[in-house]
Amino acid sequence: MSLQHRRATVDEHAALIRSLLQFDRRVETLPLDEALGHVTASAVTSPVDLPLFRNSQMDGFAVRAADIAVVPAELPIVGEIPARPGVPAALEPGTAVRIMTGAVVPVGADAVVPVEDAAVVDGLVIFETPRAVGAYVRDRGSDLRTGDRLLPSATVLGSRHLAALAAAGIASVDVIAPVRVAVITTGAELVAAGVDPQPGQVYDSNAIAVVSAVRAAGASVVFTARVADDHEAFREALRGATEAADLVITSGGISMGDYEVVREVLEPLGATVTTIAMQPGGPQATAVVDGVPVISFPGNPVSTQISVEMFVAPVLRERAGLPAALRRPRMLDTDLRSVPGKRQLLRGRAVGEDGVTVVGGASSHLVAGLAASDLLIDIPAQTVELTKGDIVETIAL
Amino acid sequence: MSLQHRRATVDEHAALIRSLLQFDRRVETLPLDEALGHVTASAVTSPVDLPLFRNSQMDGFAVRAADIAVVPAELPIVGEIPARPGVPAALEPGTAVRIMTGAVVPVGADAVVPVEDAAVVDGLVIFETPRAVGAYVRDRGSDLRTGDRLLPSATVLGSRHLAALAAAGIASVDVIAPVRVAVITTGAELVAAGVDPQPGQVYDSNAIAVVSAVRAAGASVVFTARVADDHEAFREALRGATEAADLVITSGGISMGDYEVVREVLEPLGATVTTIAMQPGGPQATAVVDGVPVISFPGNPVSTQISVEMFVAPVLRERAGLPAALRRPRMLDTDLRSVPGKRQLLRGRAVGEDGVTVVGGASSHLVAGLAASDLLIDIPAQTVELTKGDIVETIAL
Repeated sequence: MSLQHRRATVDEHAALIRSLLQFDRRVETLPLDEALGHVTASAVTSPVDLPLFRNSQMDGFAVRAADIAVVPAELPIVGEIPARPGVPAALEPGTAVRIMTGAVVPVGADAVVPVEDAAVVDGLVIFETPRAVGAYVRDRGSDLRTGDRLLPSATVLGSRHLAALAAAGIASVDVIAPVRVAVITTGAELVAAGVDPQPGQVYDSNAIAVVSAVRAAGASVVFTARVADDHEAFREALRGATEAADLVITSGGISMGDYEVVREVLEPLGATVTTIAMQPGGPQATAVVDGVPVISFPGNPVSTQISVEMFVAPVLRERAGLPAALRRPRMLDTDLRSVPGKRQLLRGRAVGEDGVTVVGGASSHLVAGLAASDLLIDIPAQTVELTKGDIVETIAL
Repeated sequence: MSLQHRRATVDEHAALIRSLLQFDRRVETLPLDEALGHVTASAVTSPVDLPLFRNSQMDGFAVRAADIAVVPAELPIVGEIPARPGVPAALEPGTAVRIMTGAVVPVGADAVVPVEDAAVVDGLVIFETPRAVGAYVRDRGSDLRTGDRLLPSATVLGSRHLAALAAAGIASVDVIAPVRVAVITTGAELVAAGVDPQPGQVYDSNAIAVVSAVRAAGASVVFTARVADDHEAFREALRGATEAADLVITSGGISMGDYEVVREVLEPLGATVTTIAMQPGGPQATAVVDGVPVISFPGNPVSTQISVEMFVAPVLRERAGLPAALRRPRMLDTDLRSVPGKRQLLRGRAVGEDGVTVVGGASSHLVAGLAASDLLIDIPAQTVELTKGDIVETIAL
């Protein structure tokens, strides 16, 4: 038994958890069609010049600029170059060739005149304006050269990035592989939807809460289990979880009461059991089991959810290359009192551009109140009283 | 043949496309585990009271508040109520019972005293402070009553919403079904990655660009095809597309040149072929084929991508219940000239909080330049010249 019991601040506990979540970053290779929203694991350089070949920017006529330097200029139309595979014949001096947008500009031509700026009469094309060398010609490599950086590392892949990869003939991309997470919810009182609850039973909301918060933070859930207060069942779930996952999250069973299966199993394995100066979410535990970090949250639904947001989601988002949750000050639209000595995370809703109102109460069972919120109001531990008009820090949900 | 050729503004064309994309909204029912990020199709009311039963907010002692009104008060501990299924015995006056967080508060008790505020000596518990009726007791329905609205319609489902549904015993949720989109890219010059391009061939970036932009806008892609300049192949792709999808998007083959397969097939079917006063993205077409809207974009990669962002993605995002792309003014860090008479959408990057810089040129082949951008700079058609320090409208990518 290596029970350590101490009261820590939110920031201390967040730092402890961050230090435990230092698993190696894994990379996976995805075809472009599956890579939307993933984050590049390294910079991508172009294997080709873009454009691949010198081509026309317009439907029009490819000419030598020198041949239309004196206007009006008449040139015979000697052919047509569609945007199709093949090498067109070189352009003879004193001639013009019809050319389509994207088609290869023939050797000998150095400018394109758009079709709307040319008049065609009896197989001749008449130009009224001279053109500079290079007009409407897209040079090979003018977008990007072979070996140039096409995308930086840590790019959250949107359609424009995938399009640029495809344009360079790249079929797959190395992205940051999601952290693999196992979720174990505990509690003899928990039942799943579809069961008619008996007195004392509640529907398990922690499983879906943790699973979806983990996914929203860019990680993947590879193992889930729900166990009652049974030590052997929890040990078995833990074995499965540590075999499958980089990180195990548990909810419930860690407070100082009896029947605290998570605490009772993890303490002999060296867990740190902590009470955080935080409301909701006081009791917390961390352990490393078979080399895998185990982060244990209290079982009150709101405590579980806010604990995930405060302690695990920020690290997972960072690992996934996703932006952090938006923190910003807002003006409180009401007076309120807070618990002395505890950092309180109240549920709130944005009011207008810069205001915030409190939603529901502080109690950790108010799951509907949390669902009706769009941010958390983060009140420092030393703050006891706030007045309408005070500025508070908020965290977007 | 019902060719209509006219020059329209971006706003007119956007309105035309919006009017065509009025397909019926479909609803699908998803298990909670698959519903993250989807949008509720209707409000959800709670089928139960939350909490389901009166329960303790703390580990402690359930008492009658009247029995500890005069302190210090000593009460015999008559038992223990864990957070487990079952109906505990009623509490006799003058007694206390140990109770765990979440456990049923017994009939007869009306307050809970946290364990840290009670001293236990020889089977008696001693209280030093009176408690109000209801202290640390979570009443049935105190979070939400049966029939109350649990979630409004159009909620983008996050973990807290899924948790609230689960807590109410709800196993699945009606969400807005994604619009089904077909994507057909055309062009004899296009090849897929993995092929060594011959002179005149380019890698198709439009397919992945449109497919992923459509997905990012909350729709699903149910059909894709790549066809050369062959009329029969395009007709066949169009048949498959209109059978499978609510909306068909094509790229390429609609300008005034020859070999314009999309225009040549769609015009006899009543297509509106338009030139928009917009750069990039001038030539555009719309049609309705077998009752399904067909939106046709030009094949230049940047034209295709910007056309999707300007004309289709906003409507799809709105249909999916997703927020619109962020538009905001920013201060230009350079002088620039724009084409008179055309609304220009330049590629740019945010600079600091409020600035913007231009990325690459205006030409519609600069796919790497677009990939290096994070916003579009929207320059009105009448604007010809802008000076460093001018304020421009930007659209987030």
